[in-house]
Amino acid sequence: MADTEPGHMSAEEFRAHGHTLIDWIADLLHDVEQRPIQAPVEPGEVRAKIPPTIPEHGEPFEALLTDLDDIVMPGITTWQHPGWFAYFPTGAAPPSVLAELVSAALGSQGMLWSTGPAVTEVETAMMDWLVDLLGLPSTWRMDTGPGGGVLQMSASDSTHTALVVARHLATRDGGSTDDVVAYVSSQAHSSIEKGAAVAGYRHLRLIDVDDTFAMRPSALADAIADDVAEGLVPTFVCSAVGTTATTAVDPVRAIGELARTHGLWHHVDAAYAGAAMVCPEFRHHQDGLDLVDSYTFNPHKWLLVNFDCSAFFVADRRPLLDTLSILPPYLRNAATESGLVVDYRDWHVPLGRRFRALKLWWVLRSYGRTGLQIHIRRHVAWAHELEERVRAHDRLALVAPTPFALVCFRHVDGDAATRQVAAAINARGDMLVTPSEIDGAAFVRVSVGATPTERRHVEALWRVIDAAA
Amino acid sequence: MADTEPGHMSAEEFRAHGHTLIDWIADLLHDVEQRPIQAPVEPGEVRAKIPPTIPEHGEPFEALLTDLDDIVMPGITTWQHPGWFAYFPTGAAPPSVLAELVSAALGSQGMLWSTGPAVTEVETAMMDWLVDLLGLPSTWRMDTGPGGGVLQMSASDSTHTALVVARHLATRDGGSTDDVVAYVSSQAHSSIEKGAAVAGYRHLRLIDVDDTFAMRPSALADAIADDVAEGLVPTFVCSAVGTTATTAVDPVRAIGELARTHGLWHHVDAAYAGAAMVCPEFRHHQDGLDLVDSYTFNPHKWLLVNFDCSAFFVADRRPLLDTLSILPPYLRNAATESGLVVDYRDWHVPLGRRFRALKLWWVLRSYGRTGLQIHIRRHVAWAHELEERVRAHDRLALVAPTPFALVCFRHVDGDAATRQVAAAINARGDMLVTPSEIDGAAFVRVSVGATPTERRHVEALWRVIDAAA
Repeated sequence: MADTEPGHMSAEEFRAHGHTLIDWIADLLHDVEQRPIQAPVEPGEVRAKIPPTIPEHGEPFEALLTDLDDIVMPGITTWQHPGWFAYFPTGAAPPSVLAELVSAALGSQGMLWSTGPAVTEVETAMMDWLVDLLGLPSTWRMDTGPGGGVLQMSASDSTHTALVVARHLATRDGGSTDDVVAYVSSQAHSSIEKGAAVAGYRHLRLIDVDDTFAMRPSALADAIADDVAEGLVPTFVCSAVGTTATTAVDPVRAIGELARTHGLWHHVDAAYAGAAMVCPEFRHHQDGLDLVDSYTFNPHKWLLVNFDCSAFFVADRRPLLDTLSILPPYLRNAATESGLVVDYRDWHVPLGRRFRALKLWWVLRSYGRTGLQIHIRRHVAWAHELEERVRAHDRLALVAPTPFALVCFRHVDGDAATRQVAAAINARGDMLVTPSEIDGAAFVRVSVGATPTERRHVEALWRVIDAAA
Repeated sequence: MADTEPGHMSAEEFRAHGHTLIDWIADLLHDVEQRPIQAPVEPGEVRAKIPPTIPEHGEPFEALLTDLDDIVMPGITTWQHPGWFAYFPTGAAPPSVLAELVSAALGSQGMLWSTGPAVTEVETAMMDWLVDLLGLPSTWRMDTGPGGGVLQMSASDSTHTALVVARHLATRDGGSTDDVVAYVSSQAHSSIEKGAAVAGYRHLRLIDVDDTFAMRPSALADAIADDVAEGLVPTFVCSAVGTTATTAVDPVRAIGELARTHGLWHHVDAAYAGAAMVCPEFRHHQDGLDLVDSYTFNPHKWLLVNFDCSAFFVADRRPLLDTLSILPPYLRNAATESGLVVDYRDWHVPLGRRFRALKLWWVLRSYGRTGLQIHIRRHVAWAHELEERVRAHDRLALVAPTPFALVCFRHVDGDAATRQVAAAINARGDMLVTPSEIDGAAFVRVSVGATPTERRHVEALWRVIDAAA
């Protein structure tokens, strides 16, 4: 019956259409540099080409492919363009894309160990690999320590989870949720502010930064003291290792010591910069991880894995499981009751989960430790070359250090001139930067790290900057 | 440089490996019925085959494929087996799998309209299609009404979001988070209890049900009155349209009237049964949607789309956006400031988002309205055939009605005999049901709805049940 059901695609039809799409993607990989980097559409233009309701009868697959070219592609902003220097990169290395295909085809659910043993155990193995690969504390390995890791969708989800666990610990003995306080630097990512609001924190303190845009521990200490004096409950502090605006690095150890002294949950947001930790020479930026309760890092940014793939680690998994474990009858099973398995459903808000660890495994094995280090070091080297050129240019000025591969600069003539430089770059269609501002002043934000970017693309960018400046 | 980077897969290598994997998947689709339905591995068996750390150097893709067969596949529980009658189905129709491939390859981020116009506008169009397809209030369409829809990862995420918006509304004028109360039936999914805990609700009332396991509105009214008398703040109520245990249907209209009277946010969880609403004859089960504030339905369950794809609708988008909007400088852009576009980042906890709407579009178009109706009606018809056989059997008894395609029964000799029937089915390796319990008594839960299931599989299941009973 299934093979004659309207709309049903047989295995042989899948084979034919699948081969067509693999060729379509391979051609895209070849030609991606020729695509416009920003989608050349106006608001509503894509939508206007889609009928208002579902068709009455199924359509042949060829119609979907036609519309992929005619409707979808003009509306795609080309994040995988080698001239992508905007935001942070989002990974899409080919082994990752192929793993996502396999994961979708398997359609296996990893909510419990028993519903997907390989989904669970490959994930646990990969999280342990990351502990070693990034130089995290070995007690965060599931196979040896009290800690452990899990994949979540995004750093926003990971950070929100950490905020919830911290709130749970601070209120479980009767304290009021109204009194919990979270602390982040004034440069922290909006996900912390949003996550705190979502988790019910009414008090969020944005802590002052120094001239490298790193949190000032003395300002944090003062804020904690003020809140204690007010009768509030300091609960959560986030150290950023690589802020979004400028990749500034907060002093993890000093913040960790304050957190320990005052009983706060200490979370590290290394969403972007965690990837750099595959190279030992960057790990001094995360010194103090022995004083950290949770850590988030996105392989889907600069470590070549396609979105979504955010790694979340806890130094001790018990508070996390205490906060999130609920076991209804229909999820009971012998494996769970044996205590021998991990049920990742208890590690985050969602219940269902797909096989995301496969793409992490395939990327890590395709590159190996050495290949990943070369990948990171090239981007950092090219960013430093760009930084040196900016430093040497008499019309440009750096606005922040470049600890990783993000270069932030402005035009010495001020905001209008700075915005003109960004506009000149972005008007070309073959490269994209993010115009931003900090402390009320405009700057140009250049993130080197897209999967297909080569040195020549960074050099081409410099020629445009130089000409526009 | 990129082509010579260690680990980098060229476009031509992608083409070759992609074709290999498409054939691998097509063969799997052919042979899926021969696979063991439960993964025949012990805890730790998969993990033991994976080295403790990343390899020093990159490995050839062929090694990944070998391990896919040798390490991964023995640990895969075959949710896509035609004998899958456990839990609820999880979709993986071939057009959906191919769309996931394309989405991964594009690697485009839909956090803002400007970062992925097609990612955003196809999603908006699909959510509007669902409004029409499921018979939801037309004011929930983005193109005409104050409401709107968004894709989230899972119903747990959607429900959590609704709980957060409700809490925000209840406390924004100074009310204490400690006082907010959520109400669900005693049969509601664990995601509501978990979501309420995550969202900081200290009070969750499990409301009594009638003999069809539907919430009793009078019990809800009593609970609300008790809480008001205690000085608490009734905030959120969830109506289940299709509970997880037995697909019981709460009286949406009666609950909605109580919610309006007492100022509660009224959320509908139709995670599974929403799919049935493509057929008008099931829509009486959701009568009262004009009294609903939010609604969640998972196309990734019974509507053929692969996980993750959970649809979340709000009757009015303003409270949602008021709760979740945060706009830092690096996300500012002309399109957002114009007010002409949707920025889906403000519709859920995560910031980043991949192009999930493509798979929904491809599935809906491949089947059309008529094809989807046939898909649903077949499963319901086969479930009703099974239900009738159970009803006519002198050793078996139904434990709940079958409004959709879930059949719940027990053995008349009690729990041990009931569990033996489930065990006899599950020991075979070619079919799987969920042994569960309700009101302290064991029952067997048979969910008809896996994408490849045909009538003959349901008939084979009945023969095993009959023999075991």
